Amino acid sequence: MESWPPGGSGPAEAGPRLRGLRGADLAASASLLSGAGAGAEAGCSAPAVAAVLPAGGSGERMGVPTPKQFCPILERPLISYTLQALERVSWIKDIVVAVTGENMEAMKCIIQRYQHKGISLVESGVTRHRSIFNGLKALAEDQPNCRLSKPEVVIIHDAVRPFVEEDVLLKVVTAAKEHGAAGAIRPLVSTVISPSVDGCLDHSLERARHRASEMPQAFLFDVIYEAYQQCSDYDLEFGTECLHLALKYCHIKAKLIEGSPDLWKVTYKRDLYAAESIIKERISQQICVVMDAKEDEEHVGHRLEEMLKNELNHVKVTSGRDLQQIILEQCYNFVCVNVMTSDFEETQKLLNMLEESNLSILYPVVVISVQFLDYESVPFGQKMENLMQIREFAKEVKKTNILLYGLLVYYPQWETGLLKAIVDLVFS
Amino acid sequence: MESWPPGGSGPAEAGPRLRGLRGADLAASASLLSGAGAGAEAGCSAPAVAAVLPAGGSGERMGVPTPKQFCPILERPLISYTLQALERVSWIKDIVVAVTGENMEAMKCIIQRYQHKGISLVESGVTRHRSIFNGLKALAEDQPNCRLSKPEVVIIHDAVRPFVEEDVLLKVVTAAKEHGAAGAIRPLVSTVISPSVDGCLDHSLERARHRASEMPQAFLFDVIYEAYQQCSDYDLEFGTECLHLALKYCHIKAKLIEGSPDLWKVTYKRDLYAAESIIKERISQQICVVMDAKEDEEHVGHRLEEMLKNELNHVKVTSGRDLQQIILEQCYNFVCVNVMTSDFEETQKLLNMLEESNLSILYPVVVISVQFLDYESVPFGQKMENLMQIREFAKEVKKTNILLYGLLVYYPQWETGLLKAIVDLVFS
Repeated sequence: MESWPPGGSGPAEAGPRLRGLRGADLAASASLLSGAGAGAEAGCSAPAVAAVLPAGGSGERMGVPTPKQFCPILERPLISYTLQALERVSWIKDIVVAVTGENMEAMKCIIQRYQHKGISLVESGVTRHRSIFNGLKALAEDQPNCRLSKPEVVIIHDAVRPFVEEDVLLKVVTAAKEHGAAGAIRPLVSTVISPSVDGCLDHSLERARHRASEMPQAFLFDVIYEAYQQCSDYDLEFGTECLHLALKYCHIKAKLIEGSPDLWKVTYKRDLYAAESIIKERISQQICVVMDAKEDEEHVGHRLEEMLKNELNHVKVTSGRDLQQIILEQCYNFVCVNVMTSDFEETQKLLNMLEESNLSILYPVVVISVQFLDYESVPFGQKMENLMQIREFAKEVKKTNILLYGLLVYYPQWETGLLKAIVDLVFS
Repeated sequence: MESWPPGGSGPAEAGPRLRGLRGADLAASASLLSGAGAGAEAGCSAPAVAAVLPAGGSGERMGVPTPKQFCPILERPLISYTLQALERVSWIKDIVVAVTGENMEAMKCIIQRYQHKGISLVESGVTRHRSIFNGLKALAEDQPNCRLSKPEVVIIHDAVRPFVEEDVLLKVVTAAKEHGAAGAIRPLVSTVISPSVDGCLDHSLERARHRASEMPQAFLFDVIYEAYQQCSDYDLEFGTECLHLALKYCHIKAKLIEGSPDLWKVTYKRDLYAAESIIKERISQQICVVMDAKEDEEHVGHRLEEMLKNELNHVKVTSGRDLQQIILEQCYNFVCVNVMTSDFEETQKLLNMLEESNLSILYPVVVISVQFLDYESVPFGQKMENLMQIREFAKEVKKTNILLYGLLVYYPQWETGLLKAIVDLVFS
C-alpha cells in the first residue's frame, strides 16, 4: 500500500514537466482529506480512490472519422496522455476506461504500447451516462469475477481532457469526501441564452451567475452508484451532468471547485492543434548539450549554453558523466557536439543510452548531432559519407521515436554565426 | 457604390484561402435580403452596412501582459486578421474599432502597416458595452465632424474572432434586416450550472435547451442605438449581451443563427496556438514549383510535383511564365529549382516579383531555393560561397516577411531520396 498523505510519496513527477501541487501544499490538502474521514487516523489513512473515464464517444464534432480520444498528438493517441496524467497520481488505485466494443482491441494496443498500468476496460454504453454507469458497475463489489475492489471515492474524468493536474484531482477528491460530491467549474466564455421554439431569443442568462461545469468530478462511490441505479432511462439517454444525478437522486449538493484553464475539453480540430502546441512547449523547455571532455569543445559548449539560455528555462551542459541522470529527469532534447572525433562516437553512445531508457515511448526525443570539421585537412567526399552515415542512423532510431538530425560544420574556423545556426535548428 | 447582391461583386476572395459562401448560394441569400427591405428593388438595393469592433479588452484571462487582440500570430497582431476578414466583404462600408487611448497609436500603426482600409478609430469605454456604444455614437448622424454616415444595419463583432466568414455575416445581416436583431449561436460544450452562495451546486441547466451566444451579431442601427441610449448604467457596467439590450429596451426578439465552430473567441493562450496552426494550415495548402525551361528540370519538377501532391491540395509547376498570375492568386509557398544556372538567377527573379507584389504584407512567404550541382565538376569551395550568398539574400528578404531557405544538392546523380528531402523541408 502506498503512503498517505501523497505529498511524501516518492519521486515527485512521473509525467514529464506537468505542473502539480507539491510538498507542503499537497500535504496540507491531504491531511484535510484524512481528517474528514470518520474514524481515520490523521495523516495515514489513504482513502481508496478509483477513476472512471468514459471514452465511447464518436467525435462527430471534430469533423474527422477518428473519435477524438484516439486522434494522434505527436503520433500518440490523445487518451494515452489522459491516462498518463491519471496514472502518475500515486493514490489513484484503479482506472476504468469505457470504450466501444469496436475500439476495445485498439485500446488494448494503446495500453500495451505506452505501458499504461492499472487500467481496466469495460464496454461503453450508447450515451455518456451509460458508459459511466458501466464503469461504476465494474468497480462495485457485487460484480462477479471482478479483480477491482469498490473504492471509497470515485473520480469521473473525460478521456479528452489530457492536462488534468494532481492538485485539482486532490481538491475534488477531498471535497467529495466531505460533501459527497464535487466538481471542477470554470467561468463562462460566452453568454448563455435560451432560444424560443421559433429560433429567436427567449432570454439570456446573467453570465456572472453561471459557470461551466468541467471535469474532473469526484463522488463518494456509494452516492453516485446509488444515483445511477435509481435514475430514469430519460436521464441515462439525455442527461449530461453527473452532479445533477447526485442532487436529484441523493440530495447531495456538490461542492464546486474553481479549476484552471488547462481543464478544457478537446472538442474541435483546433483543440488538437492547441494540445499539440502545449505538449511541444512543455517538452522543449529543457535541453542538454553533450560535449566530449576536450578543451575547445568546452568552449563551444559553454557559448552554445549561453545562447540557448536566452530562449530556454533549463539548459545543461555535460561531458557525458551525468547523462544517465539527465535522461532519468526526462530531458527530451539533446545537442551532441563532436569536435575531435569523426565517427559520431558520442552521438552513438547517447543514442544507446536513450534506447535503453525507454524515454521515447511517451514523447519524441530530439537529438542534433553536430560535427565540427577542419575544412582544409579533411577531404570533402569523406565527410559527405559521414553525413550519409548519420542519415542511416536517423532512419534506424526514428523507429523508436528518436528524431536524429546531423549538422556538419565544415569551415576553417567556426564562428558565432554557426552557433546561431545550431540555435535556430533547435527551434525549428 | 458597389454592386448588390454581393454574389456578383468582382474578385471572389481578397483574403487568402478563407472559405466563404460563393456564387449561387450567396446570390440566393442576398436576394432574400433585398426582398425583405420595404420598397427595395429586388437585386439592386444594397443596405448600408457598417461594423463595430470593441477592442478595448485587457486580455487578463490570457495570462500575458499584451491584450489578446494585439498578440502576434505569425508576427501579425490578431486584430489585423479580424479586420482583414471584415474588409474583404465588399458590402461592409465602414469598420469602427474601439480601442483604449493607450493603444490608439499602436492601432494606427497596425492599420498603416497592414494597409487596412475603411477603418475608423474611437476611444473604448471601461466595459465592452460602453465601447460598443462609443462605436455606435460615431456612426450616428447626430455626431458633428464625423466622416461616417449612419448605416441601416450594424454588425457587432469581436476583435478576437479572426475566422469569421462572409456567409455568416450575410446571414446575420439578412436576419437583422427582417427581425431587427440577429446573432450567431453555437451548441454548449459544457453543461452550465448555477452555484449557490456557499459555492455548492444549486441547479444545472439542460444543455439541449441552451446555446452559447457568439459573434457576429447584427442589428437595425436604429434598434440597437435606441437600446444603448435607453439602457441603465448597470447594464453598461455589468451586461455582456447586446441581444439582451435589444430585447429589454426595444422588445426585439433576435433571430438566432447557427454558426460554425470557426466563430470561437481567442480567449486563452491555447487559443493563440490553435489560431496560429489554423492559419499555417490554410496558407500552406498551395505550393508552386518554379523551374527554368530545360529538359531535365521538367523531369525533376514533375516528380517533385507528384510527391507534393500526396500531401497538398494545390501544387503547380511553372517555368515562370504564369508566375505573376500565381502570385496574384495568393500562393505563399515556392520551391525554386535551379539546375543549369549556378547563380540563383531564377530565385532572384522570383524574389523580385514577390517584393513588388506586396504579397508578404499579410502572411510570410516561404521560398526554398534548390540548386542541383555536379559533384565531380564543380569545386566545393566555390559552391560553399554560393550557399553563403543565399544566406545573405535570406537576411535581406526576411525584412519583407519572405523566408528564404537554400538547399544545395551536391551529388553526382540526384535520386528520389533527395526529392523526398525537399518534400520534408517543405513540411518542416
